[in-house]
Amino acid sequence: MAQYTLLIDTQDKKGIIYEISKIIYENDLNIYENSEFVDKENDKFFMRTVFDGELVITNILAKFKKILHKNSFVKLRENKKKDIVILATKEEHVLGDLLLRHYAMELNVNIKAVISNHKSLEELVKKFDIPFYYISTKNLRREEHERKIAQKIDIYNPDIIVLAKYMRILTPDFVGAYARRILNIHHSFLPAFIGANPYKQAFDRGVKSIGATAHFVTNDLDEGQIIAQGIAGVNHKYSWQDMQKTGRDIEKAILAKALDLLLKDKVFIYGNKTVIL
Amino acid sequence: MAQYTLLIDTQDKKGIIYEISKIIYENDLNIYENSEFVDKENDKFFMRTVFDGELVITNILAKFKKILHKNSFVKLRENKKKDIVILATKEEHVLGDLLLRHYAMELNVNIKAVISNHKSLEELVKKFDIPFYYISTKNLRREEHERKIAQKIDIYNPDIIVLAKYMRILTPDFVGAYARRILNIHHSFLPAFIGANPYKQAFDRGVKSIGATAHFVTNDLDEGQIIAQGIAGVNHKYSWQDMQKTGRDIEKAILAKALDLLLKDKVFIYGNKTVIL
Amino acid sequence: MAQYTLLIDTQDKKGIIYEISKIIYENDLNIYENSEFVDKENDKFFMRTVFDGELVITNILAKFKKILHKNSFVKLRENKKKDIVILATKEEHVLGDLLLRHYAMELNVNIKAVISNHKSLEELVKKFDIPFYYISTKNLRREEHERKIAQKIDIYNPDIIVLAKYMRILTPDFVGAYARRILNIHHSFLPAFIGANPYKQAFDRGVKSIGATAHFVTNDLDEGQIIAQGIAGVNHKYSWQDMQKTGRDIEKAILAKALDLLLKDKVFIYGNKTVIL
Amino acid sequence: MAQYTLLIDTQDKKGIIYEISKIIYENDLNIYENSEFVDKENDKFFMRTVFDGELVITNILAKFKKILHKNSFVKLRENKKKDIVILATKEEHVLGDLLLRHYAMELNVNIKAVISNHKSLEELVKKFDIPFYYISTKNLRREEHERKIAQKIDIYNPDIIVLAKYMRILTPDFVGAYARRILNIHHSFLPAFIGANPYKQAFDRGVKSIGATAHFVTNDLDEGQIIAQGIAGVNHKYSWQDMQKTGRDIEKAILAKALDLLLKDKVFIYGNKTVIL
Repeated sequence: MAQYTLLIDTQDKKGIIYEISKIIYENDLNIYENSEFVDKENDKFFMRTVFDGELVITNILAKFKKILHKNSFVKLRENKKKDIVILATKEEHVLGDLLLRHYAMELNVNIKAVISNHKSLEELVKKFDIPFYYISTKNLRREEHERKIAQKIDIYNPDIIVLAKYMRILTPDFVGAYARRILNIHHSFLPAFIGANPYKQAFDRGVKSIGATAHFVTNDLDEGQIIAQGIAGVNHKYSWQDMQKTGRDIEKAILAKALDLLLKDKVFIYGNKTVIL
Repeated sequence: MAQYTLLIDTQDKKGIIYEISKIIYENDLNIYENSEFVDKENDKFFMRTVFDGELVITNILAKFKKILHKNSFVKLRENKKKDIVILATKEEHVLGDLLLRHYAMELNVNIKAVISNHKSLEELVKKFDIPFYYISTKNLRREEHERKIAQKIDIYNPDIIVLAKYMRILTPDFVGAYARRILNIHHSFLPAFIGANPYKQAFDRGVKSIGATAHFVTNDLDEGQIIAQGIAGVNHKYSWQDMQKTGRDIEKAILAKALDLLLKDKVFIYGNKTVIL
Repeated sequence: MAQYTLLIDTQDKKGIIYEISKIIYENDLNIYENSEFVDKENDKFFMRTVFDGELVITNILAKFKKILHKNSFVKLRENKKKDIVILATKEEHVLGDLLLRHYAMELNVNIKAVISNHKSLEELVKKFDIPFYYISTKNLRREEHERKIAQKIDIYNPDIIVLAKYMRILTPDFVGAYARRILNIHHSFLPAFIGANPYKQAFDRGVKSIGATAHFVTNDLDEGQIIAQGIAGVNHKYSWQDMQKTGRDIEKAILAKALDLLLKDKVFIYGNKTVIL
Repeated sequence: MAQYTLLIDTQDKKGIIYEISKIIYENDLNIYENSEFVDKENDKFFMRTVFDGELVITNILAKFKKILHKNSFVKLRENKKKDIVILATKEEHVLGDLLLRHYAMELNVNIKAVISNHKSLEELVKKFDIPFYYISTKNLRREEHERKIAQKIDIYNPDIIVLAKYMRILTPDFVGAYARRILNIHHSFLPAFIGANPYKQAFDRGVKSIGATAHFVTNDLDEGQIIAQGIAGVNHKYSWQDMQKTGRDIEKAILAKALDLLLKDKVFIYGNKTVIL
């Protein structure tokens, strides 16, 4: 029997769990996982439920919409592999880690393609028989370059676009076209060290720990909703290159963790934050 | 309006959330927090709900019991300060940390008394105006000593008995008398280094991290249900006394964390494990 | 026999360890701990050595100075308890933790006095028989208030002044008078969330971890040299008050850790960083 | 100019740093890194020094041996890539991570070959153009199987043999033949959960954290000298397969960390412990 995940993001009201669980019960669905979050201060209610049973998605969705506030977000999806497209630049570690997890079937994901503004990652991607597109920025305005990338992305209509150390800033148009679907790994413990070369910044500041942050991409650079963060200790013996090397291990672990949460439909966007159920 | 916490530990069945939330809804209760855990493999269902409203506890409990399997555990309690009694031996750090949190009102707790088999902690306890009982083991069989301790404990009828580095092994009779109510901090990352002087054991084994474990006390030494664990890195420069010193900080933090979970009624005992909602 | 700690911060040159260890050897001193750090890029050399033996400090110092570059920092001190004075405002947790460690003799320190701009901590300090000075800010300009504090500090001539959540900004004059001797705990993972109410800032940003930073106080607010940092995970369920509560445990652990490093003479200030040997 | 690493493990005596640094100085060598560890209780002295200069290794070694106790361990090696051979069984994550780090030149290492008792990893290894040897255990006694493996290993005379989740127990003969050169990753926080399926054991015990341990292989199963350990939090929602999945990320990070320490000649074996300088 198929398994489904239901996500609800709505206004809180008395009896809401009762009304939702009534629909689930009356449609003979069998709950495996169930989590809620109530933000009393803002009267918001979030719910994630995993169930199996026989159902017609549109029918069930209609029933939920009838009982919920009209501005609610409701999503009901069969649990199956999601499609992703990866954007990268030159660094192998995050991309390679994703290719390997894909190969070992650790993540419930299809990597449909990798797109890069450099040619150097092609060899690695080809080893794993994934389509690789090299889209040079040469002689292209930023918008034109992004348009070419978008054309490739749209071939695959991916659920998620993963920036695996893609080192170019995206325009609002591009971000808008894939709103809530772009996942980035930033190589600092945000909001510390926004902008270029955070490891150099961290070295100059003399911090004793460095970190990485996985977040959604929005129009404000490094200000997207945070999904996961990790850190590691460093000391006075570390050059900034040593910090970068140490940081790489956090980057790949944290991006994989955040991607896994998205693949399992566990992440709600709530203003400039995330709710993870 | 009073706030309540409902705990349910029962056999899973289709519609169980619906039936429970129906009772909550029909009694006009307003949910603040709600968490469930379903163990499909063993058909078990756990739920913790915090709500406010006007109610008669026995009436509501009766309603829940009617819809749940007869072997269910159901508890409904008004949210208020819990009473604890602390048992300690000679070390000041865990006890002192609890006294300080109590003084600063960080924990929702009343420390009713401290009982020790040594006199040396009396001075510290007295500073905080908490009753201190020195019960020497001299010329007493283990059972007699415990009986004297139990007499003092029973004056206060505490919700929880906290062993804050109490260094004597308890008899099955004593443990049985306070079943599911005794919280201990063990100075190792269980199940590593069961038994005496775990820091010396850790030093001799040459580990690179040491830890502490907060757990319920059962009749099997160091085998009770684990509530929380913490670790810290060590290296070849650490003597076992250095490990002990480092360990003290983990011990006090982890015990306080576990106690906080108990005070908020977040911990279910499930066989030899805990479910924390 | 007395034990000593030697600290050297000097220009690097070939043979420097040889020349230093020659002096140690020829004076029949017995080394227990020895650590160096060489910053090749800037030709800097740091060394910390613990030895015992019979010596006249000024004689030995003179010998070291003869072989080292004239701008070197050389310190030789017998290992004994250091004196500290604590400044605090209203929060009990960091101050209380230090009082407790002092009471339990966990740290090699004498707490000579506690000074506060509020009266509320007096009761706690008095429990531990430590002098407490309440210096109200009422009707006082910042400089006058600081002058009164300095008068009290100077009674004790402490090795270190510990700001245990002292919530007022210090003037350059005050900082200059106690240069390299003021230790602060900042309630964020610096350089994230500089300034007021970092927990509120962290909550608003939606981070998944919060932290605390122990650092020397310099004239640039929250820009002093970092000694130690710690973090803890948080999630969407945390209010900013919950973050503050979680943060308190990091604050007290990290401040105690940094203080312990200072008490053991392990911390060099190197520009806007620290070298910890 | 070539860079060298000097390792000394000897009996402690007054003046030892002076005598060693004298030789370094008189041979006009330029120190980059220098670390010592003195174990006063057992009169042991460890030193690791990185320097450059022009030298004949055997000449310098002879000078050190002249001043040190006859049972000393002294090693002087030019800093260059080390050769390793990897043994694996069926799991891709640790092996793949090493292949990727090798490909991205993150580690100063040559992977000379991969040997497995299963055929399934061949495809992955071949992607990276590394020799792969499948040595079936079919119809072979343990000793015969190991002899065949040893024949392949000996083609490459590797500095280190890395067990990347090689799931067979090695005989004392095999371990003896490669003493102090075999690095293993064990999928538990040793000494907890020695033996088979530690994730299942951890699940059954209800722990709140799981870990992995990198260690040298000795004749006592899971009792070799520990080099590095890591942990991650788990909770009641984790099946043992979830724990295994979480554990994989620790395994690969910790093995890579330990290997990096070995590649940099930072690890001394000291009885049943390691000293890491």
